[in-house]
Amino acid sequence: MITPGTDLRYLLGMDGESHERLTCLVLPAAGHLAPPALVVPRLEAPGLAGLPLDELGVEIITWTDDEDPYLLVSDLAGGPSRMGVADAMPAAHVFGLRDIFPEVAQTLAGPVLRELRMRKCPTEVAELRAAGAAIDRVHARMGEFLRVGRTEAEVGADIAAAIVEEGHTGAAFVIVGSGPNGASPHHDVSGRTIERGDVVVIDIGGPLPSGYHSDCTRTYAVGAEPAAAVCAAYAVLQGAQEASVAAVRPGVTAASVDAAAREPITAAGLGERFVHRTGHGIGLDVHEQPYIVRGNSLVLEPGMAFSVEPGVYLDGGWGARIEDIVVVTADGCERLNTRPRDLVVL
Amino acid sequence: MITPGTDLRYLLGMDGESHERLTCLVLPAAGHLAPPALVVPRLEAPGLAGLPLDELGVEIITWTDDEDPYLLVSDLAGGPSRMGVADAMPAAHVFGLRDIFPEVAQTLAGPVLRELRMRKCPTEVAELRAAGAAIDRVHARMGEFLRVGRTEAEVGADIAAAIVEEGHTGAAFVIVGSGPNGASPHHDVSGRTIERGDVVVIDIGGPLPSGYHSDCTRTYAVGAEPAAAVCAAYAVLQGAQEASVAAVRPGVTAASVDAAAREPITAAGLGERFVHRTGHGIGLDVHEQPYIVRGNSLVLEPGMAFSVEPGVYLDGGWGARIEDIVVVTADGCERLNTRPRDLVVL
Repeated sequence: MITPGTDLRYLLGMDGESHERLTCLVLPAAGHLAPPALVVPRLEAPGLAGLPLDELGVEIITWTDDEDPYLLVSDLAGGPSRMGVADAMPAAHVFGLRDIFPEVAQTLAGPVLRELRMRKCPTEVAELRAAGAAIDRVHARMGEFLRVGRTEAEVGADIAAAIVEEGHTGAAFVIVGSGPNGASPHHDVSGRTIERGDVVVIDIGGPLPSGYHSDCTRTYAVGAEPAAAVCAAYAVLQGAQEASVAAVRPGVTAASVDAAAREPITAAGLGERFVHRTGHGIGLDVHEQPYIVRGNSLVLEPGMAFSVEPGVYLDGGWGARIEDIVVVTADGCERLNTRPRDLVVL
Repeated sequence: MITPGTDLRYLLGMDGESHERLTCLVLPAAGHLAPPALVVPRLEAPGLAGLPLDELGVEIITWTDDEDPYLLVSDLAGGPSRMGVADAMPAAHVFGLRDIFPEVAQTLAGPVLRELRMRKCPTEVAELRAAGAAIDRVHARMGEFLRVGRTEAEVGADIAAAIVEEGHTGAAFVIVGSGPNGASPHHDVSGRTIERGDVVVIDIGGPLPSGYHSDCTRTYAVGAEPAAAVCAAYAVLQGAQEASVAAVRPGVTAASVDAAAREPITAAGLGERFVHRTGHGIGLDVHEQPYIVRGNSLVLEPGMAFSVEPGVYLDGGWGARIEDIVVVTADGCERLNTRPRDLVVL
């Protein structure tokens, strides 16, 4: 049972988000008689005209505001013993389906779909490569935006516009973490004014028209070389990011790539300052499988795409992060971001 | 159990969307000992600094990427017999909570929260009024955007920019349904070029910085008076919208407001062409309770805010819709959109 979101976009090319009116792809497991069917509010049916539903053999079943869409799903699905629901399905629909199938065990569909989604085909890799090039063009223009005397919010607004100018349909996130704000990994922007000597974390990305995302972080110094202690910690971080990228190849675990980043940072006494996992898969979602995190024994295969983004965060002081998207190749990986990884002074 | 989304914004002023890392407000029912607690990824804790958590007595519990956040929730919640989860909570988190509390019945939190959210306080009404005025200013500028020879997409891009210029933080939706595309109620924009004589449905809105939304539809004719049959059907629609607004007052049911719109349209033989409910509540969500739909016996009370937006849709031909947001007052309602409701010729 797949409601709107990136799973449905992956399967049918259908865009849009879930809302209170049920849209649901009912996809029987192999061996069942019923064809796949898309249950959709009648007023949205005209919007399906461009989708390859006939080609895929997907039947359209419409419903109106005074009908019960869960009953329609129940008629279509017959008497299943298990039901997988999209990981992102809102609870309101999860429970609507649970109540119409009270005897049916509900599980996540994610474990099935991720086996498809996390292995990118060449077309998907080409989209991720184009997204990487687009966000690299934005980083190449950072000197236009990031200047002493401007607020993070002003810098961020310019970056958001540049993300669109360089080919994305929008800015999915714009982090401008200057000075002490850089110590908060998921800071976005604030009214803080950029000062001479600030270290600034810039983590930005968005979707191309295809829906595939960019995501790239660089750390800049503004107007002056940073203090020696900052440069020393940054050098450790840069070495850790290189080591982690160098560890990526088919046959190794996701956890081992995380460890390759974490070990040199820990050895330098900064382990407690690296407060997040090393990376996340990327594709139609900004964050998807595989996660590059301690304990993840998933074995990497060609076509898997994810971020490698260690960071260090000094409370009240400053932060730094370096992030590239990589795709696993036959014997290593391809980096999709190629801007300099040094602590560039603007 | 409330994950990020508009419920959490309503309760704590906390913005942002749900993602794969669990953030969850654990809110014990009255009579339990434990204080409310917000379970949040450690890397996001700095972003909570501006929230009134101390004032509200909400404890912050952080977790890191190698911990199990559901275990933390379980420690906090003790041994409940029932658990309400946010209607928008993604299935991945619903099942994470289910599996850690296998004996606990899960229900939707929506029926509890909607009792608060659907009765707007004066501050919320003021925000909705400001949003209505902002989107009315965009409609007032429609002659700048909607002209013969331009594509729907070009018109839509200009409207989206104007929505931001007039005070919204973004355009949540922009429908430019020209000619036959107007017959699809949830059309957005296309490459179709506006022609002289087109009837065009423009349904637009977005959030103010407070998160409260605008939503207003007007139907325009471009460059020429439409055919007499169009004008006749439009007159029926306009009368139906007036009748429906006139029916809004405390003590009547949501269904009766729907019926007041539907009856004159049905009497004119167009009942089959009015394919959706009459309206939806609005606030932090564009669509929320109360829904103005057949079968909804909810009795209206002062402070309830919703759209009144009947429409007629002629397959392959044209469509029209008129939408105002109204707020129930002590003895009737206040309309928050005041642009002319005639079929204005641009």
